[in-house]
Amino acid sequence: MEPQLNRQVVDTAVAHDGPIETDAVIVGAGPVGLFQVFELGLLEIKAHVIDSLAYPGGQPVELYPDKPIYDIPAVPVCTGQELTDALLKQIEPFGATFHLGQEVTTVQKQDDGRFFVETSKGTRFLTKTIFIAAGVGAFQPRTLKVEGLDPFEGSQLFYRVKNPADFAGKNLVIVGGGDSALDWALNFVAEGPNKAESVILIHRRDGFKAAPANVAKMRELCEQLEMQFIVGQVTGCEEKDGRLTGIKVTGSDAVTRVVPLDILLVFFGLSPKLGPIAEWGLEIERKQLVVDTEKFSTSIPGIFAVGDINTYPGKKKLILCGFHECALAAFGAMPIIFPDKKVFLQYTTTSPKLHKVLGVESPVFD
Amino acid sequence: MEPQLNRQVVDTAVAHDGPIETDAVIVGAGPVGLFQVFELGLLEIKAHVIDSLAYPGGQPVELYPDKPIYDIPAVPVCTGQELTDALLKQIEPFGATFHLGQEVTTVQKQDDGRFFVETSKGTRFLTKTIFIAAGVGAFQPRTLKVEGLDPFEGSQLFYRVKNPADFAGKNLVIVGGGDSALDWALNFVAEGPNKAESVILIHRRDGFKAAPANVAKMRELCEQLEMQFIVGQVTGCEEKDGRLTGIKVTGSDAVTRVVPLDILLVFFGLSPKLGPIAEWGLEIERKQLVVDTEKFSTSIPGIFAVGDINTYPGKKKLILCGFHECALAAFGAMPIIFPDKKVFLQYTTTSPKLHKVLGVESPVFD
Repeated sequence: MEPQLNRQVVDTAVAHDGPIETDAVIVGAGPVGLFQVFELGLLEIKAHVIDSLAYPGGQPVELYPDKPIYDIPAVPVCTGQELTDALLKQIEPFGATFHLGQEVTTVQKQDDGRFFVETSKGTRFLTKTIFIAAGVGAFQPRTLKVEGLDPFEGSQLFYRVKNPADFAGKNLVIVGGGDSALDWALNFVAEGPNKAESVILIHRRDGFKAAPANVAKMRELCEQLEMQFIVGQVTGCEEKDGRLTGIKVTGSDAVTRVVPLDILLVFFGLSPKLGPIAEWGLEIERKQLVVDTEKFSTSIPGIFAVGDINTYPGKKKLILCGFHECALAAFGAMPIIFPDKKVFLQYTTTSPKLHKVLGVESPVFD
Repeated sequence: MEPQLNRQVVDTAVAHDGPIETDAVIVGAGPVGLFQVFELGLLEIKAHVIDSLAYPGGQPVELYPDKPIYDIPAVPVCTGQELTDALLKQIEPFGATFHLGQEVTTVQKQDDGRFFVETSKGTRFLTKTIFIAAGVGAFQPRTLKVEGLDPFEGSQLFYRVKNPADFAGKNLVIVGGGDSALDWALNFVAEGPNKAESVILIHRRDGFKAAPANVAKMRELCEQLEMQFIVGQVTGCEEKDGRLTGIKVTGSDAVTRVVPLDILLVFFGLSPKLGPIAEWGLEIERKQLVVDTEKFSTSIPGIFAVGDINTYPGKKKLILCGFHECALAAFGAMPIIFPDKKVFLQYTTTSPKLHKVLGVESPVFD
């Protein structure tokens, strides 16, 4: 994916001195969010794109990167990754800035009509318009649902590893059967500055989604008593004096054992959540943002919603419908961004102005 | 283009014994009409497609087959011909029947709720639904606008040559500078059963769009006095006893000469006309069909309009918007075609049923 982002700016800074002033912020870097960059770009509007994932592509890349999609018009078949790559190529001329691995936490209307936007990484914007292309919501780690466990999140329970050194020398229990669970288990067993005191891997069955080589390595380490693997489900937890001391694991033999721990790491994959968007004051109907079909504006002028996250009479959650919504939303935003500019629909095939914007040569017409 | 139509049926018959009974007739084989086949196909509705041109592709193929289009989502650049080829490939699984080189002349609602549709070639249908994807209208020959000339169309004035033998032995005047004008001029000068008594070519300037080899051949024939070429504009006509006897041609020297003739052939290329669609009783606003944005239904239930021919608040004449309209129109047609069937939105990536319809193998999901 990296090479496709070469002409686009990926902002990796944690925070800026002042807020970034811009015409458009797009929330979501899935196919529809990416095409929103294109439709805004044709109207000479530069955009900043925010996504909770660490890479563009959204749901198709997160959930089925290699599975074929057949209903992108004029693309008889493509994978989620190919779709993303094609869209990244298409939006290259427009130099969007990507702010990845962060969710929007705050949206506040300012006195001057602009919106103040802040992300979980502290990136701040002052923007004239917002395009919510958040699909089914921000992808968040799936949580372990066990009574009494939630209060320990951030102190002893983690769904992400930010700084592996925090867990060095500790007694770790890692839950999950995918690549993240196996990668981190092997990482914390390995000699080095992050080596844990002990590592116990728990998975509900004796079969893994993770790479077979890593599974084999894990089994080898278990035989060498460097770590332990238990088949079972986490069914409860134990605490003492406000500290999590262990979890209860019920095996396939229906026997429940207590596994002691300092730190519990859970890797159940990502699932989408509407998240803070629900609290921005937008009209919502069954977890979808209500929009008109003229501009795809939400109930707050200046905030548009495109793709799977919106709803209107006849709505179908299809990527190709999101593309249409992007086009009309971009035109709908023009009076807000350039109040004095007259807008005419031009065609990429014939408009020398659009050729300039796209960075291509205008053909000579006869 | 031919190879792309291999799995689709091209109906070349002039007329059928009885009307073809079908669920859906699509009027227009441009990009949007072709994608309507796809969206109906996913819902297991087979379609018949009618177009005035002799080949699929519509405006992009007729007007700019080789010029690049940049705003098809996920297709960074393609020509009108490539777009058409990709869409023809995408709709292959659905076995649509094409009825080309004919326009719809009649649409009548029947007592049983179906529509009787007839084309200029006499092809007749009884259909539950009609999808008008006629773009800017049916492509028709551009006419020569000279007072008093129209009454002779079909007797002495022609914009198409159906049967060249009709003009053998006549004094012909051919107007135009494109391939059609030059091809027919050379054809009627050549020895053979269709040889004309005389051929005069008239073009407004001494420069041609036609193939240079044919232009050279024409000049050679003029030198040999086999035919004549006059630079000038047709500015009037002369008649006697109800017969067209000549046309007035004004040269670049501002002198007007009368050129006598039996037959006048005019080749000014094709231009789109809304044509009979304007007389079907549909609500029209500035030559566009008024539709809702839920189903893209016209004012007559069962008749849908998609692509450049329709209008609604926010409408932009973009191919990608037409694709969206096709999807919602297809779902909108389901209650009419299958009143008792419950319809669920399925995804081409995950639905084994859609994989069957598309003729592809269902991947195994884990």
